[in-house]
Amino acid sequence: MTVRVHVDVVVLSLSPASDEGSGDARVVQTLLRDVDPPRLPGDVLGEAEDLDEAARRVMGEVGLHEPRHVEQVASFGAPDRMPGRRTVSVTHLALVPRPFVPSDGWCWRPATDRATPLAWDHDRILDAALDRVRSKLSYSNIAYGLLPEEFTMSELQEVYEAVLGMTLDKRNFRKKVRGLGLLEETGGMRRGSHRPAALHRFASPELVLLDEGPLV
Amino acid sequence: MTVRVHVDVVVLSLSPASDEGSGDARVVQTLLRDVDPPRLPGDVLGEAEDLDEAARRVMGEVGLHEPRHVEQVASFGAPDRMPGRRTVSVTHLALVPRPFVPSDGWCWRPATDRATPLAWDHDRILDAALDRVRSKLSYSNIAYGLLPEEFTMSELQEVYEAVLGMTLDKRNFRKKVRGLGLLEETGGMRRGSHRPAALHRFASPELVLLDEGPLV
Repeated sequence: MTVRVHVDVVVLSLSPASDEGSGDARVVQTLLRDVDPPRLPGDVLGEAEDLDEAARRVMGEVGLHEPRHVEQVASFGAPDRMPGRRTVSVTHLALVPRPFVPSDGWCWRPATDRATPLAWDHDRILDAALDRVRSKLSYSNIAYGLLPEEFTMSELQEVYEAVLGMTLDKRNFRKKVRGLGLLEETGGMRRGSHRPAALHRFASPELVLLDEGPLV
Repeated sequence: MTVRVHVDVVVLSLSPASDEGSGDARVVQTLLRDVDPPRLPGDVLGEAEDLDEAARRVMGEVGLHEPRHVEQVASFGAPDRMPGRRTVSVTHLALVPRPFVPSDGWCWRPATDRATPLAWDHDRILDAALDRVRSKLSYSNIAYGLLPEEFTMSELQEVYEAVLGMTLDKRNFRKKVRGLGLLEETGGMRRGSHRPAALHRFASPELVLLDEGPLV
């Protein structure tokens, strides 16, 4: 039996920082096709393409040319996932520091707003991608995918709070993050209407898994 | 374009404990088809099967009916991965506490012994599964898949040493493992030719990711 292999991409970013003083929390946004029902970016695997090449083509088609972080999440293959044709979806996750202007017909939507269910099994696929990011926050530097190269500790905390969907204690958060040893200070400061804040960056520009376990 | 979807399964276990006193280190073993070149268990996805159902069928065909732990690892789809036919492999990982007697034509081999390269891209697939287990050792209780329900701290250390391919300091290992809070004592003891050793089990019988990060 042959099937169609789709490569779908869950593109995630955070809503822009609120205007100073508005106090709105930032939320995780995902890129959807603005149709009814909405659907994730995706296409059929091409004849000469590897899976990651197809993912990059799909990203390019929605206007994403420089994702900060891309990884494969999982494949979905329930026989009835797309009625009328047997398909398997190989799902990828792409993180970008800020929402880019998407191609025509695509729009950003809060990732947890499911007033309108997505097409096929795309709610399940989106949830799997969100779960991956949530759990990797606690044992990797994956937050780098959602941040500019230099950021304040408040901005880092905003990423954690948006992805986890909860408010974190500032002092405790900073203590734990420093304990992970993934960050370094750039020496620069961000000055605005608030107190100047030290800028940080991740020591590695690529994904690093924490080695906190019972290893050596 | 349509392709063939294969579901391949990397089955891992540890070589049995050496006879007392022999001192041979235990090694991770994988199940291979005893042909030239050897290959991993796998088959074409069936018409009415979901991916995990196909993985269970493949496991049954090699004689594995009760895996302790199964998870999807990744999909592999390079255009030339199986010359002459366009295929995508959805790879699963299965862990068992001890090597079972496999079906005819299948055998256990040390997972890192690559004197004979495996068929197609199966070396790469096996490496991806081994990497997954190695990294999950440090942020989950995945070792439960390779252990009996009750085990001594020495047996737990053997699993870590076999998967990581290194010798660990006994005192440091026990201190770190206890700090993770994943284990509980059963109250029982193992008595043999050595000093009696306390038996432990994992508090959860299913996979738990550590929540050691900067969460709350």
